[in-house]
Amino acid sequence: MIANHNCKEVSIFEVGPRDGLQPEPVFIPTEKKIELVNRLTDAGCKRIEVTSFVHPRWVPQMADSKEVLAGIRKKEGVTYNALIPNLKGLELAMECGLKEVVTIMSTSESHNKKNLNMSTGDSLKEIEQINKVAAKNGVKVRSYIATVFGCPIEGEMSPQRALEIALKLEEYGSYEISLGDTTGMANPVSAYEIPKMINEKLTGAKLAVHYHKYHGLEFANNLASFEAGIRIFDGAAGGLGGCPYAPGAKGNCQTEILVEMFQRMGIETGIDLKQIYEAGEYAQTLSTLLHSRCV
Amino acid sequence: MIANHNCKEVSIFEVGPRDGLQPEPVFIPTEKKIELVNRLTDAGCKRIEVTSFVHPRWVPQMADSKEVLAGIRKKEGVTYNALIPNLKGLELAMECGLKEVVTIMSTSESHNKKNLNMSTGDSLKEIEQINKVAAKNGVKVRSYIATVFGCPIEGEMSPQRALEIALKLEEYGSYEISLGDTTGMANPVSAYEIPKMINEKLTGAKLAVHYHKYHGLEFANNLASFEAGIRIFDGAAGGLGGCPYAPGAKGNCQTEILVEMFQRMGIETGIDLKQIYEAGEYAQTLSTLLHSRCV
Repeated sequence: MIANHNCKEVSIFEVGPRDGLQPEPVFIPTEKKIELVNRLTDAGCKRIEVTSFVHPRWVPQMADSKEVLAGIRKKEGVTYNALIPNLKGLELAMECGLKEVVTIMSTSESHNKKNLNMSTGDSLKEIEQINKVAAKNGVKVRSYIATVFGCPIEGEMSPQRALEIALKLEEYGSYEISLGDTTGMANPVSAYEIPKMINEKLTGAKLAVHYHKYHGLEFANNLASFEAGIRIFDGAAGGLGGCPYAPGAKGNCQTEILVEMFQRMGIETGIDLKQIYEAGEYAQTLSTLLHSRCV
Repeated sequence: MIANHNCKEVSIFEVGPRDGLQPEPVFIPTEKKIELVNRLTDAGCKRIEVTSFVHPRWVPQMADSKEVLAGIRKKEGVTYNALIPNLKGLELAMECGLKEVVTIMSTSESHNKKNLNMSTGDSLKEIEQINKVAAKNGVKVRSYIATVFGCPIEGEMSPQRALEIALKLEEYGSYEISLGDTTGMANPVSAYEIPKMINEKLTGAKLAVHYHKYHGLEFANNLASFEAGIRIFDGAAGGLGGCPYAPGAKGNCQTEILVEMFQRMGIETGIDLKQIYEAGEYAQTLSTLLHSRCV
């Protein structure tokens, strides 16, 4: 399939303004966040995760989510969304007029507890409720499953647990599920096998992959998932992200390189290569965590 | 094949001391070059390209090739070799007791002229002679074909031309042929198709791939070639290399990351991960071209 792939187009889901900027320790002015989103829109990104509605106590960088969403230039045909941790977040997102939200939970109990302060069982219940309320209001729900390819706390994770969660999320109504390699622990074998196994069981929801940097192996991982039939790939312009408090934590897979890989393979992403490189460079100017760019 | 690959082991061909250090503009003391080779030996590398016998007028960094070869600690079962541009180089290599040499030529006339100051036809004649003399003296010949995946001067290259050259090299007696992506222009489709096509036509010689950095895509390229059945991969510890006079020129694929990719995939390389990372870090301390590490 790498050769003779018969694939004309893949979809890139841009997470830079949220997952990329979120861990930045110095507050980035609202107008610069808006500028980044506008540049991503201009580059041809069709799906942009703009911000999150997590309480500012936990993620102070995203305290201006309303202002950012109000300030960006919205282009027809482009979906803008926000990460929400709970029903309260959904309400806020809907108040801002969003038609799509993103939920997150982990396969790992320890990571879920640390990240969301609840059990994975409680996270599932919350996402079920979010889906109910969202459906009533015509809002689409995309759902991340984190630590699918390994957990920094628990180590190797059970692909069966990821499958169980994915099937639940599909049942609740999430229209797209993205498998997260939260700390860059995937390899081409797991990046092939796990998405393929889960994709074969899903009957309605679409499956995406969300790799983080590991010295460039993230591109081999994306390629392996492509080989497994995945056609939706998450990336962050500039390759920003990671955790300022965890030494060695890696940024997100760099959108512009991912776009170039597919373009060189003859596969369209709808994104202009020059403009996405420029947007990535702009994103990097906003970062004080730039060292993570070279890992 | 990425999953269920049934591959227990791949072979890594280490080119760091030659291809990695060669373009360094500041002369690296002989004892440090020796130290790097010794560390690579200790890490478990089985095949190491130690130096070259190109005239010091052209590659001053390798002016101490005799001293380096005399000074390294040679371990049984490890093959040490040197790049030679011509018959004179072969003589010098044999005087140093080498049992294997490496030749190079390009698919691109312009690049061959620039790199070797002769036509590809003359290069073929030279390598034919080298093989004759080498065979008489029990010396094995490995042969690079450069710019297979694209030429910085001529652009896209004909895979048929690479095939013609590979078949000639095989006929002359080169026991292994390595396809070089000299400036990081390959993509997973070409990295799959070209090695596969050439490998299917070779009847005796083994085929290797030699990728250079391009923002991490080199690992996707290696993976694609693995998927195409290639089992020999070139790398340079520390990811050094490139050209000091060409802005944007990229280093070699970083051995330690390549080793880690295969190890994560459950494929043995015979190389100790911790030690090859340390050797890579040591190689980087020798470099003044370190900026190329982050590209």
